[in-house]
Amino acid sequence: MPYRAPVAEMTFLLKEVVGYDEVAATPRYEEASADMVEAVLGEAGRICDAVLAPLNRAGDLQGAVLENGVLRSSPGFAEGYAALAEGGWVSVSAPPEFGGMGLPVAVGAAVNEMMSGACLALHLNPLLTQGQIEALEHHASAEIKALYLPRLISGEWSGTMNLTEPQAGSDVGALSTKAVPSGDGTYAVSGQKIFISWGDCDFVGNVCHLVLARLPDAPAGTKGISLFLVPKYIPDANGAPGVANALKVVSLEHKMGLHGSPTCVMSFEGATGWLIGEAGDGMRAMFTMMNNARLGVGGQGIGAAEGAYQHALAYAMERRQGRSPDGTIVGHADVRRMLAGMKADILAARSIALACAVAIDMGRATGEEEWMARAAFLTPIAKAFGTDVGCEAAEAGVQVYGGMGYIEESGAAQFYRDVRVTAIYEGTNGIQAMDLVGRKLMDGGEAAARLLDEIEAQAEAAKVVMPDLAAAVWEAAESLREATESLVARPAAERFGVAVPYLRAFARVLGGHFHLRAAMADPSGAHARLALFYVTRLLPEHASLLAHVSRGDAELMSITAEDLAA
Amino acid sequence: MPYRAPVAEMTFLLKEVVGYDEVAATPRYEEASADMVEAVLGEAGRICDAVLAPLNRAGDLQGAVLENGVLRSSPGFAEGYAALAEGGWVSVSAPPEFGGMGLPVAVGAAVNEMMSGACLALHLNPLLTQGQIEALEHHASAEIKALYLPRLISGEWSGTMNLTEPQAGSDVGALSTKAVPSGDGTYAVSGQKIFISWGDCDFVGNVCHLVLARLPDAPAGTKGISLFLVPKYIPDANGAPGVANALKVVSLEHKMGLHGSPTCVMSFEGATGWLIGEAGDGMRAMFTMMNNARLGVGGQGIGAAEGAYQHALAYAMERRQGRSPDGTIVGHADVRRMLAGMKADILAARSIALACAVAIDMGRATGEEEWMARAAFLTPIAKAFGTDVGCEAAEAGVQVYGGMGYIEESGAAQFYRDVRVTAIYEGTNGIQAMDLVGRKLMDGGEAAARLLDEIEAQAEAAKVVMPDLAAAVWEAAESLREATESLVARPAAERFGVAVPYLRAFARVLGGHFHLRAAMADPSGAHARLALFYVTRLLPEHASLLAHVSRGDAELMSITAEDLAA
Repeated sequence: MPYRAPVAEMTFLLKEVVGYDEVAATPRYEEASADMVEAVLGEAGRICDAVLAPLNRAGDLQGAVLENGVLRSSPGFAEGYAALAEGGWVSVSAPPEFGGMGLPVAVGAAVNEMMSGACLALHLNPLLTQGQIEALEHHASAEIKALYLPRLISGEWSGTMNLTEPQAGSDVGALSTKAVPSGDGTYAVSGQKIFISWGDCDFVGNVCHLVLARLPDAPAGTKGISLFLVPKYIPDANGAPGVANALKVVSLEHKMGLHGSPTCVMSFEGATGWLIGEAGDGMRAMFTMMNNARLGVGGQGIGAAEGAYQHALAYAMERRQGRSPDGTIVGHADVRRMLAGMKADILAARSIALACAVAIDMGRATGEEEWMARAAFLTPIAKAFGTDVGCEAAEAGVQVYGGMGYIEESGAAQFYRDVRVTAIYEGTNGIQAMDLVGRKLMDGGEAAARLLDEIEAQAEAAKVVMPDLAAAVWEAAESLREATESLVARPAAERFGVAVPYLRAFARVLGGHFHLRAAMADPSGAHARLALFYVTRLLPEHASLLAHVSRGDAELMSITAEDLAA
Repeated sequence: MPYRAPVAEMTFLLKEVVGYDEVAATPRYEEASADMVEAVLGEAGRICDAVLAPLNRAGDLQGAVLENGVLRSSPGFAEGYAALAEGGWVSVSAPPEFGGMGLPVAVGAAVNEMMSGACLALHLNPLLTQGQIEALEHHASAEIKALYLPRLISGEWSGTMNLTEPQAGSDVGALSTKAVPSGDGTYAVSGQKIFISWGDCDFVGNVCHLVLARLPDAPAGTKGISLFLVPKYIPDANGAPGVANALKVVSLEHKMGLHGSPTCVMSFEGATGWLIGEAGDGMRAMFTMMNNARLGVGGQGIGAAEGAYQHALAYAMERRQGRSPDGTIVGHADVRRMLAGMKADILAARSIALACAVAIDMGRATGEEEWMARAAFLTPIAKAFGTDVGCEAAEAGVQVYGGMGYIEESGAAQFYRDVRVTAIYEGTNGIQAMDLVGRKLMDGGEAAARLLDEIEAQAEAAKVVMPDLAAAVWEAAESLREATESLVARPAAERFGVAVPYLRAFARVLGGHFHLRAAMADPSGAHARLALFYVTRLLPEHASLLAHVSRGDAELMSITAEDLAA
């Protein structure tokens, strides 16, 4: 069963649901009209369907391997990547002055989702390159930019992120990799990094590592961290890959899924690196990369959900079993419940991700603080909810297949295994939720309140045409407002025990809002029926989540470690 | 990190929470006093910890294989099974007249959970044998019983269930395997069966297949199905395995997990079989086996949840990351939230399974219809909720480990992959829910109402001591009662679209009831704190689930197959 990029649905959401028209109305993006975007998405979709999707299972069956220190990628990945690079799909939002298309992030987010729906393991490679492009664009010197950006944007070279060390995972500040000035403006970088996705690659000319490390005498914690660019091959005078740098892949991890994406243990052994940004400012530069990557990883979850959904639907429409009105299992109420739930959640998660991308674009195009605050607020929600929906849809996909879902040949199991890591990497979903209730509510809840104002205003406007839907969304937004206010009134440290339910409740309400907009734009069509399903079946979850958000974490924190071990 | 069978907790639940004292007070089970049960569980626990748990990872890494038609089981499985058989643990509830211990099903359920927590793949073998013992005990001739039961109960031989065919999965009635009378009282059985767990086994003397098949001229559908016993080797005059029967394993499935348990495609090619029970009565006989297996599979989910929990807790108490009060991640509120959720759900699911077992025991000991109806009502809940909790706890276990959870060496990923099938086999959880709202509400909701009466009476009695807990449980039971009445008032066909949420809501309320009982028995201890967490954090889910149960499935069924494909 082949994957088909959901171009029409994405175009509908951009046009009718997440306000892409505002982006296209800015001078910066005036060329990216809705019609042009539709054509771009159609072209990207064709590559994803025809070139990437057929690689997905091969990547699972024959994962990347390390042979005598040399990485060999999965069959067909080199050709698939070449097609992406040739089409300019590695990074559609990259700046035109370095060869990029300069398209809005909203378009890039849609293209990322398609690529990951077609082949998650391969997509992770350009996704990391995109983050590196952003980091260099904002923090590197003109010389570094001129040397690296054109090659990264064209796909000739690829980029990685090197944060994690064995003792420093979510707690990045605990890292110990060292960078010592060499006296010639470069640094000697030494240390071990783990969980480095695509830490090596046999189908690009150079692999460029962004590495977090400490200068000698740097203070402890995150303030002592600087960012370095450490290429696999040191560029020669012409910018071509020259001598091999002092770094290597020590081993690959044996993972539950995503076998096509090599997860490397990296060793830097006095490797030559260039400082990016200011000394001690590494975390800030890395956050540029991470925010991009977080939205992208949210899109990976949605892409996997879409892939799992398409497979499950095709199976359900073909599999005959029991008495059902149309003979196939899609006629069984419980199978339909699972499929409708997948589809409704995908719409919600996709709209959140695209709305986040629109906010990023508007922030860039207008420089307005409000848009930037909105983008920052929506990023952890897009990441965590997108990947949760990915895991849940893949789970439901297995269930729709029944016993066949547990058999690897069906493909349902691969979605389930592959997507699971997206809820962990680029900051676990728990870390996203802590970011939301901590850093992102540091404005006193202003960004949240603005979103809720919009949701309520939209519900008010929809009241006459769709009274039931509108009332449910309005009431949900109002209880979310109360919960937000109760959170803001508490010290940040006392919010973390309810962070995950709060984030999910926010996503549920946003989902209701976007479903309502979709229904208003398609009042007698499939979107209206799906919105009613979402509002009656899925939205109510917000109430049980918010019940304890307002209550706080006293019950949780009264449980001791000894209680857990009892 | 080794598994430790939760003997003390199981004993506590039996004694204080699920009313095991009533079982021990019956003449049938008067020898199985609470103290004796505690000793038995302790002994079983020692075997599970010391012998089975060390096999779990080997079973994953080196799954069962078929070599030139010969099955080879995973390393150590033969020795592990031998230890189970020697200790009498294959079937502790089997009848004493054939060599069994005759212990209550409540004890058997606890032992099953332990075995599956230690090694799910191996445990599936005795679990299926147990079902076969029950089916033969109730439906076979005296001759067959005398020949087979002692050997199955001792573990010398093993048993399987052969239901599924490619075109007949959940719809068992569509099966086409044939059984033709041979004229000597036996039958020639021909057909292909799929998904046959432990369809062959290299550490028992004989593999006994219970096979559903059709006699010539049998009517279509389930009424035309009969049950046959088809051994791998035909017993000779002394009852020893004689000539090989005309059946074979064609191939093994390549599964996402549970690699230690061979899932076979079986071919019966005129194999000699014996009719079990009456012709055309195969489904009834098979249901004897399936009800047992369903409770056992629920226990597998709980066992896997317990294993995943123990691993995650051990990791969290050791892993240092970030600023937390005690230095390890168990001090982080969100990690504690995940662990507390796992533990609270395990208590709920385990209590439901043990209460179901108690009802089975009381039905057998007293012959009272009410107990049998309760057992029948609780069985689908025990199966579906137990395995859902298994999947969810394994999922949370991966998340507690963070990036390490995705790496196979941690073991967290294996729990996640292995347990997933339990929500599918022995009737998918959707089928369980349809059984609950269909067949199990055919009494007009009487069995449900009796349970709810008890829950409310218990909440009333607890009101003075634990007012908050008691009020929450009482109110939840009352809204479940209303939803049940609204369901009963509808034709069965219109209940299926809300079957899964109804089952889960029922499990949530039962969980609240059992947590309240546990808290009453341990009012200033860990159980009371966990109960408060359950009631404030997990019980509220029932409200959002019941919201649409009462509303019906109109929104769902208005979504067409075309809408899903749009």
